[in-house]
Amino acid sequence: MNRILCDASEVDHAGNAVLTDHRAEHITRVLQAVPGQILRAGILDGPTGTATVVAVEKGMVRIKVELEGTVSCRPSVDLLLALPRPLILKRLLPQLSALGIDRLFLTNASKVERFYFDSHVLKPDLCRVQLVEGLQQSGHTRLPRVSVHRRIKLLLEDELDESSDADVRCLLHPGATDRLVDALRQSDARRILLAIGPEGGWSDYEIELLQTYRFQTLRIGSRILRSDTACISAVALASELLPA
Amino acid sequence: MNRILCDASEVDHAGNAVLTDHRAEHITRVLQAVPGQILRAGILDGPTGTATVVAVEKGMVRIKVELEGTVSCRPSVDLLLALPRPLILKRLLPQLSALGIDRLFLTNASKVERFYFDSHVLKPDLCRVQLVEGLQQSGHTRLPRVSVHRRIKLLLEDELDESSDADVRCLLHPGATDRLVDALRQSDARRILLAIGPEGGWSDYEIELLQTYRFQTLRIGSRILRSDTACISAVALASELLPA
Repeated sequence: MNRILCDASEVDHAGNAVLTDHRAEHITRVLQAVPGQILRAGILDGPTGTATVVAVEKGMVRIKVELEGTVSCRPSVDLLLALPRPLILKRLLPQLSALGIDRLFLTNASKVERFYFDSHVLKPDLCRVQLVEGLQQSGHTRLPRVSVHRRIKLLLEDELDESSDADVRCLLHPGATDRLVDALRQSDARRILLAIGPEGGWSDYEIELLQTYRFQTLRIGSRILRSDTACISAVALASELLPA
Repeated sequence: MNRILCDASEVDHAGNAVLTDHRAEHITRVLQAVPGQILRAGILDGPTGTATVVAVEKGMVRIKVELEGTVSCRPSVDLLLALPRPLILKRLLPQLSALGIDRLFLTNASKVERFYFDSHVLKPDLCRVQLVEGLQQSGHTRLPRVSVHRRIKLLLEDELDESSDADVRCLLHPGATDRLVDALRQSDARRILLAIGPEGGWSDYEIELLQTYRFQTLRIGSRILRSDTACISAVALASELLPA
């Protein structure tokens, strides 16, 4: 936890906040903070700043937040991801918010098991906890916006143009001829939407559908990556190769 | 499992092999293969080829391996990694072998807990199982070589020059001025050695020590990444940006 993040509603007009959850535990047990100590802090989807520890009591920490930083800049990457197994998704969410993505579209695909959609990991509150964990690690404040789509066709037809303003769309597929890294080097795109398939890959129908909606088929290296490894690799490559 | 990999010792001179472990289970349950079916196969640290399913019995699959491919090319990336928590290491090993690294140096650091070195994950047999899993996912055959070092100073002083022929060494640190991606773009290096610290980072002493041994301090983006996310991101960036 490299930055203690609070929701705006937790902080009063004078900057006072009372923490009683894992943040309090982290401040007392890991950081072993004492009154007067200054920690890096911030407001979710808001500015960064500092938190001065005011009091440490059993299970509770009082802090005074002072905001001076700017809101974290908007990440340049959107991700359309075939819904992974719940355990994989839970591990992936903090890593994705730490790396920085703007939108996450979780979608159905023919090789996604239907029961994945019933997972508690998809509940907005639990999903948010994972995303905040990644932000507190990374030091940034901007939460990715997550949406769940049970029909990829409807997402592509009716919703994606409204929801993502990426100027290039890329479908990652191990069989592609061209590499993501070369496409990024040759492009003058500023924002990208990456599509990553399920374990077992997209179906031929899904690939054709994505191509119809302007997704260019590209690959990372010559290896078939698990979808979580592919996500981290692709988001890192795109974030680092797109202009800041 | 996109390629069934066998140890050379498992295959007789005529190419016959009998599988009774998770590979047999994968072939019968996931692939639902029947006799005559041809699967992608290969020999660990050897050539790729095919395996024809000869017989499927309870808990056992007989295959006939035919080798025609070449040995996977040697990955361009070596990784020096402060030993992560055992559970994190176990998850990371298959991802690293899938992405492709040549050497993995697992080392002590001041923020590495001593008991991590007692973990069963470090036992050569168990470590190898994780690495093979990643290779079977990726389709490549070359196993990363793993070594464990309880004193980073001895590793740097006495062993690293012999063990890694990388022409550039890079120490990833969130506070660095220059970016890994820019250094890779401007360099004519063909092989890189990446150093990634523990949760909590390298100590000042360790950073100075690494710098003394030709490690250039670089960063990925402006975010502080967990060491497993940093590993995957950095290996993907280096693999894709170094010349093939």
